[in-house]
Amino acid sequence: MIALVEQELDRLLPTEQLAPAIIQRAMRYSACSGGKRLRALLTLYAATLRGGAIEKALPVAAAIEMIHAYSLIHDDLPCMDDAELRRGIPANHKEFGEGMAVLAGDGLLTQAFIVLSDLPALVGISADCSLKIIGEIAQAAGTAGLIGGQVADLQCAGALPPPSQAAEVLKFIHYKKTGALFRAALRSGAIVAGLEGVELAAVDTYAHNFGLAFQITDDILDVVGDSATLGKQTGGDEQKQKLTYPRLFGLDAARQMAQEAIDAAISALAVFGTCAQPLVALAEHIVGRDH
Amino acid sequence: MIALVEQELDRLLPTEQLAPAIIQRAMRYSACSGGKRLRALLTLYAATLRGGAIEKALPVAAAIEMIHAYSLIHDDLPCMDDAELRRGIPANHKEFGEGMAVLAGDGLLTQAFIVLSDLPALVGISADCSLKIIGEIAQAAGTAGLIGGQVADLQCAGALPPPSQAAEVLKFIHYKKTGALFRAALRSGAIVAGLEGVELAAVDTYAHNFGLAFQITDDILDVVGDSATLGKQTGGDEQKQKLTYPRLFGLDAARQMAQEAIDAAISALAVFGTCAQPLVALAEHIVGRDH
Repeated sequence: MIALVEQELDRLLPTEQLAPAIIQRAMRYSACSGGKRLRALLTLYAATLRGGAIEKALPVAAAIEMIHAYSLIHDDLPCMDDAELRRGIPANHKEFGEGMAVLAGDGLLTQAFIVLSDLPALVGISADCSLKIIGEIAQAAGTAGLIGGQVADLQCAGALPPPSQAAEVLKFIHYKKTGALFRAALRSGAIVAGLEGVELAAVDTYAHNFGLAFQITDDILDVVGDSATLGKQTGGDEQKQKLTYPRLFGLDAARQMAQEAIDAAISALAVFGTCAQPLVALAEHIVGRDH
Repeated sequence: MIALVEQELDRLLPTEQLAPAIIQRAMRYSACSGGKRLRALLTLYAATLRGGAIEKALPVAAAIEMIHAYSLIHDDLPCMDDAELRRGIPANHKEFGEGMAVLAGDGLLTQAFIVLSDLPALVGISADCSLKIIGEIAQAAGTAGLIGGQVADLQCAGALPPPSQAAEVLKFIHYKKTGALFRAALRSGAIVAGLEGVELAAVDTYAHNFGLAFQITDDILDVVGDSATLGKQTGGDEQKQKLTYPRLFGLDAARQMAQEAIDAAISALAVFGTCAQPLVALAEHIVGRDH
């Protein structure tokens, strides 16, 4: 399944034959450097919740991975999180320089919308559904989602909020930074599958809890994980005095919160019967992972 | 007409009531700071080429101005053109810091697509036409347009191309950096007006020549213009050894090239009769301007 996503990304990103080659190379460096492809899998699995084929959702999944890759490139910049390593290789700006990294991120964000505007020709999704998907993804990538989360993160890195507000701020940041794009990935797949009403609401519940469990686990791994397995530096959150679940609630309570969220995510999918199996397995994998 | 664009931008950008307020403020700082609104005017005037009302094209025009504002914010960053002044006020990164400026640019680019995905509800443009417009604008903003031009510009700032290739490189950069978005602005307006075939091709011819005349004039103003009137530093191109029309062809020849391009632009619109009047006047204004 992941191989299909890699192939689709390769097909839908501009080739290095197109001038200027360096920007295409910088975009591919980050978008095609592996990773878990979680967001793509969420889209593809959601697209099969009524038994449909995944192929129709492949370009949507690729577009979401482009947006994810863009956000990582910009987050890693020296003026943001200042990270040197990403997915086990030098961050984009370390390899191509800061200016090119800004442009590579811009390029990936833009390419995602080029792809999405072409969904009717690519895979026969209706113009109406294509527009809905563009709306879902753009909202999740905007200041109400990804960008808003990164802003709040930047602000917190400077000064931690008072203890009484910390839990709320933490949820706000994580919901926006990771939750919103997970939700858009799942909803976009669900739209490809033709889901509406209570079925779409069930997908939302799964999305919310999946995102929560993912982020808590991510925070835990930064404390107890291994840098080589993760492909990025660990201990960075603590060093930067970042607000995290283990810091706020302790490791054990954080672990339990993650498990409860996963249980809630899985329950929500009962309505889809065996078609929900891939999303159930993915949720279970999330809390058990070591990278 | 410009007041309508300002009003539409204000309406379609997230309000500062939405958290985090700082990013909304940073986005509005650059998107609502005036400027010539040339791209918006091109869209609105093109939308009237068959006598239609401009209102239907207002959100499209605003979205294009958001993308233009994003590209200026990122171009001005220290890792790019390193400009301190824009439209007579401090560049976005001077006012909000580099990290926030990167995110404000990202936010404006994303907000443009949020708006465009909502065109059917906003102004009753069909889903098919909305998708076409998104495709036009995303292509123009991507590596085949804006971003590609900025990359080539970055590369040239380091090392000028050999004289035999200079004219070609110059055209490449300018077509991408400014021409592509002018073209998308005009074509998007034309799509709102329902133009196709030879009529759309006439708009393309206007777009190409308008963009050329604009860029040549811009280069000329950097040599002979007044910093206060322009609202940005002059002489910067010369200082940074940038490739420009006056540098390559001399001031007089550059002026003549601009005039010839404007004549070609105007001729192309004959087919639209008096409905072309606003675009004709805009083209004439372009070569006569002092800012």
